[in-house]
Amino acid sequence: MPIPTDHQLFELGDVVLQDGLTLRDAKLAYQTYGTLNDDKSNAVVYPTWYSGRHTDSEWLIGTDKALNPDELFIIVPNMLGNGLSSSPSNTPPPYDRARFPHVTFYDQVECQHKLVTEHFGIESLRLVTGWSMGAGQTYQWAVSHPEMVQRAAPFCGSSVTSQHNRVFLESITAALRADAAFAEGWYRELPEKGIRAFARVYAGWGFSQAFYWQEEWRRLGFSSLEDFLVGFWEGFWLDERDPNNLLAMAWTWWHGDVGNTPGFDGDTVKALNSIRCPLLSMPAEKDLYFPPEDEQWAAQHIPRGEVRVIPGVWGHFAGGGLCPEDTEFIDRGLRDVLAMDP
Amino acid sequence: MPIPTDHQLFELGDVVLQDGLTLRDAKLAYQTYGTLNDDKSNAVVYPTWYSGRHTDSEWLIGTDKALNPDELFIIVPNMLGNGLSSSPSNTPPPYDRARFPHVTFYDQVECQHKLVTEHFGIESLRLVTGWSMGAGQTYQWAVSHPEMVQRAAPFCGSSVTSQHNRVFLESITAALRADAAFAEGWYRELPEKGIRAFARVYAGWGFSQAFYWQEEWRRLGFSSLEDFLVGFWEGFWLDERDPNNLLAMAWTWWHGDVGNTPGFDGDTVKALNSIRCPLLSMPAEKDLYFPPEDEQWAAQHIPRGEVRVIPGVWGHFAGGGLCPEDTEFIDRGLRDVLAMDP
Repeated sequence: MPIPTDHQLFELGDVVLQDGLTLRDAKLAYQTYGTLNDDKSNAVVYPTWYSGRHTDSEWLIGTDKALNPDELFIIVPNMLGNGLSSSPSNTPPPYDRARFPHVTFYDQVECQHKLVTEHFGIESLRLVTGWSMGAGQTYQWAVSHPEMVQRAAPFCGSSVTSQHNRVFLESITAALRADAAFAEGWYRELPEKGIRAFARVYAGWGFSQAFYWQEEWRRLGFSSLEDFLVGFWEGFWLDERDPNNLLAMAWTWWHGDVGNTPGFDGDTVKALNSIRCPLLSMPAEKDLYFPPEDEQWAAQHIPRGEVRVIPGVWGHFAGGGLCPEDTEFIDRGLRDVLAMDP
Repeated sequence: MPIPTDHQLFELGDVVLQDGLTLRDAKLAYQTYGTLNDDKSNAVVYPTWYSGRHTDSEWLIGTDKALNPDELFIIVPNMLGNGLSSSPSNTPPPYDRARFPHVTFYDQVECQHKLVTEHFGIESLRLVTGWSMGAGQTYQWAVSHPEMVQRAAPFCGSSVTSQHNRVFLESITAALRADAAFAEGWYRELPEKGIRAFARVYAGWGFSQAFYWQEEWRRLGFSSLEDFLVGFWEGFWLDERDPNNLLAMAWTWWHGDVGNTPGFDGDTVKALNSIRCPLLSMPAEKDLYFPPEDEQWAAQHIPRGEVRVIPGVWGHFAGGGLCPEDTEFIDRGLRDVLAMDP
């Protein structure tokens, strides 16, 4: 897919990050769907996922969907690091490429908050929702800005990156770094072997064991397992997904923890407990790196937390918009959460 | 651990493999525990697992165990490719290193059969058992030699390598190959970065999500997650486990399928159906690459097949002898299967 060019750029100015570095002249790429109403009460924030762009999120938006642009004003901010917002691949020296600073979920949400409040003048959000790292940003919004978030619906993601999930991140990044062409991030030519290895490691995690057993990849138009590994997985990660960008976003993911929000001093449970709005989490039954158990754990610490497990064999990609049944399940969840009292 | 030197070498002579190549002057390294009785009725075959050596299997053998060397004669044959039996690392040119021929589970078992029958003159086996790829060899024994195998007890392994399991194998091997130092197998210096990447990928699979969540690695004496990744996982795969050996064994694993036994023409179900002895399979509840579901599937096609799931969070390594509770479960299973009528 060609990289989208239909988005707007919001000038963030100089962003001082949690780790102390300053991202100068930072930019937040975003797209909106629908019209902001007069009292600015119909806004939704729907952040992107690991390497996803706003266009990759559009499958959940439509006049036949809960995220209906005839009724809602849906803002899709691109994550810092995804190649459209400020990223290793597009930041000028000296903070370019391997020197791009570490960005936390908290930092991500503060940038989005600036867009929402300063640019749009929005003071409350009807809903925040997102898949995977988008779910992580959803949790972060609910903790960072309980005064604004009326409802939250993270799907296939978590409030804190579990240890096992971190091992998964170690595995994909170690595969990428094993390619000498990666040159510690100072490559001029793509470390293609490393990217393809990264892709093959990811392939085992993105979908469940049962997905492969049942050869569900046939529904996506692939002719054999190897065709799926090359065509879907290698193709996906070779699609203009810059390795330094992937590592920057992996750093954000690895360090995901709402407890690291200022004021909570690393206390994840205390942070979860501070969430005021109804929060519906939808993990996928067979998600291998965001298992439902982790969400059950989180929900017990969120006063108005609820978990609904997406059934089926698609694993993490249940939330990727590729399986109509799973999309319908998520859409129904969003419909229900939008009907809840804030 | 130093590479063991206490084993015997059985001269296999020239072995014609399923894929048509001949492994000349092949050697099978093995160790025995206990004494073969006069009527040769107390023999057990207990094959090794992926990269494991006979010494790595001794935790399940003992006078207080089902595999009691005071009563049984336990033969532990080292898999071809494991570095002790004929392997890429020890075979002279021209079939050395990256040119080592492909060996199937069927080939492995034929070599072991030669040792058992020609060297020891044994005509029936009281039990065949093994972990992981050792379980694959157990299934293969039961299909290749139903006339000899009186009981079978594979644990944490399968009769056919599932598609998802193949993706797992693709992921570890792609990480290793991504290191240019691997040089398509013609390295003279170890591709250490590739091995360490291989190790990190493996780390996510060997134990379950819950194992990491509960920080069970503390029971193994590690002080942090990273300490476990370096100390256990990188240490494990850097311990004289030659990369070409790892790839040779991964090839065997990837192609595991009892249906490829001569006479079954690729029909896995027909092959399972031909197993005559009682077969007790013990998958681990949270094994990520040999999930219990696959064993339930296999058991329904084995006339005297039974499945007992090892409970707990250790995942695949439930069968690795590191968790006392799991070892006790497996030992009890072996005790029960040894008491069954052949």
